[in-house]
Formats: sequence, C-alpha cells, structure tokens
Amino acid sequence: MYNLIKKNGNARLGEFTTVHGTVKTPGFMNVATVAAIKGGLSAPDLKEIRCQVMLCNTYHLHVRTGDEKIKALGGLQRFTGWDRPILTDSGGFQVFSLASIRNIKEEGVTFHSHIDGKRIFMGPEDSMRIQSNLGSTIAMAFDECVENPAKYEYAKLSCERTTRWLYRCKEEHERLNALCDTINRQQLLFGINQGCTYDDLRIRHMQEIAALDLDGYAIGGLAVGEPTEEMYRVISAVEPYMPQNKIRYLMGVGTPVNILEGVKRGVDLFDCVMPSRNARHGHIFTSKGVVNLNNAKYELDDRPLDEACDCPVCRGFSRAYLRHLIKAKEVLALRLCVMHNLYFYNTLMEHIREALENDTFDSFYENNVHVLDRRCVD
Amino acid sequence: MYNLIKKNGNARLGEFTTVHGTVKTPGFMNVATVAAIKGGLSAPDLKEIRCQVMLCNTYHLHVRTGDEKIKALGGLQRFTGWDRPILTDSGGFQVFSLASIRNIKEEGVTFHSHIDGKRIFMGPEDSMRIQSNLGSTIAMAFDECVENPAKYEYAKLSCERTTRWLYRCKEEHERLNALCDTINRQQLLFGINQGCTYDDLRIRHMQEIAALDLDGYAIGGLAVGEPTEEMYRVISAVEPYMPQNKIRYLMGVGTPVNILEGVKRGVDLFDCVMPSRNARHGHIFTSKGVVNLNNAKYELDDRPLDEACDCPVCRGFSRAYLRHLIKAKEVLALRLCVMHNLYFYNTLMEHIREALENDTFDSFYENNVHVLDRRCVD
Repeated sequence: MYNLIKKNGNARLGEFTTVHGTVKTPGFMNVATVAAIKGGLSAPDLKEIRCQVMLCNTYHLHVRTGDEKIKALGGLQRFTGWDRPILTDSGGFQVFSLASIRNIKEEGVTFHSHIDGKRIFMGPEDSMRIQSNLGSTIAMAFDECVENPAKYEYAKLSCERTTRWLYRCKEEHERLNALCDTINRQQLLFGINQGCTYDDLRIRHMQEIAALDLDGYAIGGLAVGEPTEEMYRVISAVEPYMPQNKIRYLMGVGTPVNILEGVKRGVDLFDCVMPSRNARHGHIFTSKGVVNLNNAKYELDDRPLDEACDCPVCRGFSRAYLRHLIKAKEVLALRLCVMHNLYFYNTLMEHIREALENDTFDSFYENNVHVLDRRCVD
Repeated sequence: MYNLIKKNGNARLGEFTTVHGTVKTPGFMNVATVAAIKGGLSAPDLKEIRCQVMLCNTYHLHVRTGDEKIKALGGLQRFTGWDRPILTDSGGFQVFSLASIRNIKEEGVTFHSHIDGKRIFMGPEDSMRIQSNLGSTIAMAFDECVENPAKYEYAKLSCERTTRWLYRCKEEHERLNALCDTINRQQLLFGINQGCTYDDLRIRHMQEIAALDLDGYAIGGLAVGEPTEEMYRVISAVEPYMPQNKIRYLMGVGTPVNILEGVKRGVDLFDCVMPSRNARHGHIFTSKGVVNLNNAKYELDDRPLDEACDCPVCRGFSRAYLRHLIKAKEVLALRLCVMHNLYFYNTLMEHIREALENDTFDSFYENNVHVLDRRCVD
C-alpha cells in the first residue's frame, strides 16, 4: 500500500506499507545478489548502514542454492536473517544478460545456467513460483529485457509479449499466494514497463499494465546502453501514465545524480550495483563528489572518506588506512568501502526525503546536482 | 609486567600488564598480517570476538605501506583503530620463509621483497627501528628461523648468532624507546628461544637469553615441519629454564589441542593463522570438533555452526546459509567463518582460564583433548 504524503513538483514523498514493514520513499534498495551484499555485509550490517529494502536475484538463487531448498529453510528472511522488506527481481534481466544460448518463445525462455551449463526453462509461472519459494516481500513480473538501441518493430512485439506474460504472472501469483504452504501469502507483485526508448511504446505499455491494478510499477529496460538524457526523457514521458497511488521503481539506476533526476521526475524506488561495485574498485561517493582511493595523494591522508559522513567507516578509519587495505588487496577494504558507499546512498535518500518534507527539494537538487557525480577536489 | 596468579601443574593463570592494557593469560593473539584480519574483520569486530591482542607482521608492513608512513600516521593503533595491545613479529620468520635469494651475514639478511623484488637489508637494528616506527606494544627480537629438520652444527651456529643479534636488538630497542619522537616509548621486547629440535641447544640458548631480563620470552622455530610430539617434547625440555616471572609465548601454534597441550606445559601466549586460514576453506572449529561446511550434509542444516557458541555468527546464521555463501564464493562467507573461528579460539582461552581459576584444568584438558581436533560427527 503506497501512501503519497506530499509532492514538490513531480518529486514525491511517500510511504509504502508491506507485511515486513514500511518503506519510506524515495528509497534506495541495497543489492544482495545471492542473498548477501558483495563485500561481506550481513543482515545486521544492513541495519547499521540504514538500508530499508534488500534486493535479491531470482536467477542466481534459482541456479544456486535453489529456491526449493531456500523454501525448505524458511525463505529468504529466515535464510539471511534480514527481517525487513526484500524485493526479488524476476530473473528476466539475468536470463537475458548472463545466460547463454537463449531461446525465447511465447511460453518463456530456455537458456543455459552460467554456472554449470545446465539447460533451464523459465516462463512467467516459473518466475512467480521461484519468487514465491524465496518468500520475498515484493515479486517482480517476468519481462523481456531488450538491449538499447533496439529496432522499433522488435521493441513493439516484445512489449506485447511482456504484457501477455504479465497477465500470466498475475494469475499465477494470486494462485500461489492462496496456497497454505506459501511462505509469504501477502507477497506483492510489481509490473514492469518496457518499450525501449520509444515514448509511444512506453506510454501504451504503461497504460496497458496500469489497468491490472498491481501493487507497484517499475520502469525497466533503462540504463542499458542509452544516453542518460534519453533515459531522463523516457521517464518524463511515461510518468504521467503511472498511477499516482502506486509506488514507482526505476530499475538498475544509478549514480547519485541519476537518482536525484529520477526523484525529480516522480520516481520512488531505486536499486543499483554501482555503490558496491565502485566501492570494490576504491571509488568512493562523498558529499563533495567521488574520491578515487587508488590515487597516491591519499597515502598519508588521515581524514575520513567524507568529513560530513557519520557512517561506521568514516567514524573509525582514515583514507590512508583504507588505501593501504586496497593496495594490499585485503578483504577488509571491500567491506569498508562498500559499507560507506551504501550508507552514502541510503542517507542521500534520507536527505532527499527531509528536503521533500521541508518543501526544499528544488534547492537540495540545485545544491547537489553539479557536485555528487564529479571528482572530489579536496 | 607479568603477574603469575596461580598454577595447575605447569599450567599458569596470569596477567600481563602493558601500556595499552592488561592481557589475561593463557591468551591467543589474533593475526592481522598487514594490519587487518584476513576475511574482512576490523578493529571494532576484534572487540566483538573477544580478542585481547592483535598481531601484525613487521615484514609485510615494511614492504607495504611502509613503517615510516605508518609512523607519520601515528602508528599502528591510530592506523587500525585498535587501541589495545599489539604485538609485532620481528620480520625474521617472513624474511626466511617468504622472501627470495637470501644472503645471511653477521650484520643481517639481504633479500628481495616478495611484492616488487626490491632488494632489502634487515638486521637486528632495522627490525627494532621498523617495530618502533609501527609503535606496537610488544616488539619481537630479530632471530634466524631455521627449518626443521636442521643439522645440529648449523642449528648451533644459528643459535649463537641469534643470541648475538638479541644483544644488538636490546641495545637498539633501549635507544629507540629513549627518543622523544618514538610513538610508544614503553614498547616491550621479547626474546626468542631457538635451537630447532635439539634439547641441549634449546636449553643453553634459553639460559643465555634469560640472562638479558627481557619483558617476555618466546619459543620460536616450532610448528615448522617437525612431528607434533617432538614439539611437545621441546616445550617440556625448555620450560624449566624459562623465567617463572616472565610471560611465555609459543609462536605460530596451533590447533585447539596444540594450545591445550601448550598451556599444560606452561605456555601463556599463542598465535596462529589456522583459525582464519581454515575458516576461509570452510573448516570450522566447534566445541564438538571440526565441521567441514563444504560437506553436502550441511546444505539444509539450519542449526548454528556450534550450538554451544554465542558468537555473532552462531547467534544469527545457519550452517545452510554459510555453506551457500561458501559455494557462491561470497566474501561474507570468509568474514563470518573467520569471525566464528577466532571467537572460538578466544573463548577457548577464556574457558581454559576459568578452569585454571577453579583448579579444574586437568579435567578440562581430559574432556577436550580428544574432541577439539577431531571431525564433528553430529
């Protein structure tokens, strides 16, 4: 249940109630691909870095350890120790990007596991069943992810199939939620808007899926190769057709500035591997821009990563120590840099919510949009 | 300052006072080779797993990031955030085991860095200066480490050189402690007993170094290839010649049972990479023996690693989840398994101290000596 509290222009302050707790929006979901955040963060760590929602990958968990085993172990919450909301993706993105030798038919997709080459079939019903086994708070519909740029005709046919798949997802999802042994019988279902970078396809598809009255709507198939300005244009084009009373999720986006721009255009939820992936390469997000810890100038710098940050890393460790750990290829470097970057994203969302609450989002945007993605110069 | 509280046979309960706090003995030091525990544990984590002393490697820190830079950053305690006792080894063991093309002379050893091949000279004075720069609580004397088995004549000459080096260490250590800009002017110095597996060499060398009235004495050059029974025999042979009023440290040892046997023979301090190294391969120490998490039988096992353990890992995660993380090669697997194993070692020492306190060490020994190193069968 999404509750819109107030707007600043198109930017929305809201709350999303689930059986596993309330999510304040705009919010950023922290990616735990195989039920663990890369870099060695556990469920208690996620609480410390102010995460609201953990995002797990259906495809990865299906191929290893297996969703049926995770169901036997009580579902993802019991498995990971994270008792707050979990969103599972549909597996679609990974099937279309990681797996090899795909064969797409109306029924679904046949592909080979990237782990052991095993032949796997996944269609809308399978995706729903896997996500039901995982017991996530929010399941995502199974869609076709098309790379940009794509031909108009292919994009159109793919959109139509994604709509047909969505009907099948909804039916199977309702059936599974009604079963006695389902782990989370109040699991929510989000539909995914597709249409590549064609505004008319995006809008028509959004209108079609809005008619299903789902629990939330995502914009998928962006940040997959198109220029950033095109992504912003598509969001702005489709946004007026997204139900005001439903939560909106922009999938796989993005840099701090991408998120600011998304919020400004009416998006409520984000996820991205960027904060953790960049952290693993020593690229640190700060309130003054991006710090590259590999830079020799940090060798004797005993300041914290971000003097304005009160994360566990900035409270306890210097740039010099973190750089030393990176150079020595110590696992602790990964952990601390990932902790900081995710904390930065999670608290960026808090600052955005605070600005919306105080009706100062416009000035917050102006003060940050030219700072956050540039190189830190201090 | 070592204070012997009481004995059960040869086993000693004591306290060791340093400028950075008191260490209760018998105690186990947690190895943080390059100023970080392998597996992603930070200084605050060490407190949570009940570590008393962190052990850092002089050689590794000398070749990267460099002890002079660490001195400029305020020393190891400020660098790592660990404000309790730190022991630095002398660099000797690494110089003799890791570095290539060694040239040993009376002055010291010339070798090539394992990182960039750079030619480095290290003698007793250099080792003392590096450890002084690091600002550790306890510095170890620079000794020659000889592999077992070694020829008697070589072992004898090596022992004599190690004694001469110890005199030079002591002199340089006193000089450095007297300098105004030394980070820890109350740094302690431990001498190291050598002599391979020759009891007479061991005893003579121990008598020689005991005469220097150092802050503590270590038994080095064991657990380097000789049979375990020979190690126990050497400890028993040399122990009567170790000063009763000084702390005794058995270097690089060992399994939980090795530690029990060491305590029984009058040893106070231990260190070993085994708990962290084995953890990284899924080998878990428990009160019922060793669990190999790679074993398929743990796939659906939702019990904690050790039902008798109250470490952060056993309180929050199942064997099934940890096995999943290992199979998925997630960094979180390393972290959680290392946390548990180090906690197991640190609390094993607490249980040993409790038994000594209650004069029940003999029964504690009997109850555990046949259990801790075997495979867990539950």
